[in-house]
Amino acid sequence: MTTKQIVLSGRPNGKPVLENFQTNNFELAEIKDSEILLEAMFFSVDPYMRGRMNDAKSYVPPFEVGKPITGGVVAKVLKSNSVNFKENDIVTGNLPWQQHCVITENGLLKIATSVAPASYYLGILGMPGLTAYFGLMHIGKPKAGETVVVSGAAGAVGIVVGQIAKLQGCRVVGIAGSDEKVKLLKEEFGFDEVINYKTCNDLKKAITDTCPKAVDIYYDNVGGEISDAVISNINFNARIVLCGQIALYNSTETPMGPRLQHMLLTRSVLMQGFIIGNYQSQFSEGMGQLSLWLKEGKLKYKETIVQGFDKLPAALLGLFEGNNIGKMIVEV
Amino acid sequence: MTTKQIVLSGRPNGKPVLENFQTNNFELAEIKDSEILLEAMFFSVDPYMRGRMNDAKSYVPPFEVGKPITGGVVAKVLKSNSVNFKENDIVTGNLPWQQHCVITENGLLKIATSVAPASYYLGILGMPGLTAYFGLMHIGKPKAGETVVVSGAAGAVGIVVGQIAKLQGCRVVGIAGSDEKVKLLKEEFGFDEVINYKTCNDLKKAITDTCPKAVDIYYDNVGGEISDAVISNINFNARIVLCGQIALYNSTETPMGPRLQHMLLTRSVLMQGFIIGNYQSQFSEGMGQLSLWLKEGKLKYKETIVQGFDKLPAALLGLFEGNNIGKMIVEV
Repeated sequence: MTTKQIVLSGRPNGKPVLENFQTNNFELAEIKDSEILLEAMFFSVDPYMRGRMNDAKSYVPPFEVGKPITGGVVAKVLKSNSVNFKENDIVTGNLPWQQHCVITENGLLKIATSVAPASYYLGILGMPGLTAYFGLMHIGKPKAGETVVVSGAAGAVGIVVGQIAKLQGCRVVGIAGSDEKVKLLKEEFGFDEVINYKTCNDLKKAITDTCPKAVDIYYDNVGGEISDAVISNINFNARIVLCGQIALYNSTETPMGPRLQHMLLTRSVLMQGFIIGNYQSQFSEGMGQLSLWLKEGKLKYKETIVQGFDKLPAALLGLFEGNNIGKMIVEV
Repeated sequence: MTTKQIVLSGRPNGKPVLENFQTNNFELAEIKDSEILLEAMFFSVDPYMRGRMNDAKSYVPPFEVGKPITGGVVAKVLKSNSVNFKENDIVTGNLPWQQHCVITENGLLKIATSVAPASYYLGILGMPGLTAYFGLMHIGKPKAGETVVVSGAAGAVGIVVGQIAKLQGCRVVGIAGSDEKVKLLKEEFGFDEVINYKTCNDLKKAITDTCPKAVDIYYDNVGGEISDAVISNINFNARIVLCGQIALYNSTETPMGPRLQHMLLTRSVLMQGFIIGNYQSQFSEGMGQLSLWLKEGKLKYKETIVQGFDKLPAALLGLFEGNNIGKMIVEV
């Protein structure tokens, strides 16, 4: 059968552009023994993918030029030569940006759409939800009464972090980039305060005003000057959870900023970088807790769903413009 | 009786100068009920004292202009109205820069000069030794075979950190500021490699060369560009122990440098600031272990002893010139 794929046609210099991607039609190989034929339903676009577009050593290898982009995908089994999967099963895995693909069962997970919509397994019940859970609970270690600040608060991770922090009895202040996001986070997601960093004249002061007892946990999804403003308000014995630095992903030179070590030292602050793979052995704990909170109605979720396979590159680029509220998903 | 004291006569702007201090003769009050009259033997000068010369909120209150500097002192009891101390006891405590003083027994500790020379209680068996021990063991958590880099390696803390790391089976690379220090650390203190940052043309490369398996623990006493070079060689899952930032203590503006968060994130690195007071409840563990290692000959120590009460300001200023090898002490 003929199908479509999207490949990395060239590496970006700074901000990625649509010309870094190319859509190809190609003839799919026949499925062999123990292989599975999948049809994509939902694709995840995530900020960390920007790093993979560079030719740089990191915790995941770079995308290869001329090869399809890969990422989180929810798909339907069209045909299976594996005893572990059958036709019409809904699965998730790290898969190529293709409308159809033939793969082995390695790393493929069957999902239960009775628990939540299939696309949630790319979000609150997938990598972003687990990232929120482990970063906040295992690094941030929130205690009731503490003040938690979340940057990128309306993103796929931030929107979950804020709600979990509220469940722990914390005061939660979000930072987001539009009045629409501010309104939604306060009215629908229970954030105590949300600051629009784009219209706020003095972010440092806005954080001082909304965090009168200083910041005990800073869950950082963005980096850069927003983080400088938060960290200048950091409390003694605070924890800074380094989850994302989206503000800097398109930098072409080493970004410079204030040296933080002296403040971290005199205030006995912990700063911890992490990737979700570190917690792989504890995923079932995280999935169990997130599923339970969802079922109990204690966690809400939000997706921005873009329609059409061809819109994948634009959806990914849109993350860096703040186009999404909650998880950005492409549905085919 | 008449005695001498050294007061802070004015706050420094940038690097402190001798004119920021003034020596006064004054008449000591008579000792009252439960008070103790002390004669100073050894004074500790420490880098953290620079911060107290500023009028800034920190973990210790600033020195007051016109009042004596205070710090770690070893002294002899000349007269005691306390049942807990008697004449000729040797004690240590946080005391004013005075040849004699009259104080209450609060915070005063009797020391056993049979275990180690009295001045060691200002160094390896005092705040610097405990700082080395808790920072390395409780934050760095060294494992045999790991690579540990120590900046300010010939200082009162660094010289102990390197030796403890060797006792844990680590490869230890020091960074120091003179060939004399390099030679001493390698030949007398067992460091595997020591880099003279002042004569090294490319510190980043020197660290890559001496740490072929990258840096698992960075015990940072200095900050600034030395730390930038080390951190660019940091390993996955590394720990950065923020103990001191002496390179920046005399800065008058916020020092700028490369933003580190993205590297800390992608390599899952922990950076933890601390002050020794955080570990107060565990001091007996630290003192016990350090005393044992000293007694067994597994830890060596080194002091730079300056003679004369009047030399106290010059000795403190000398820390910022790297004049000391090991602990800087003033003997009276």
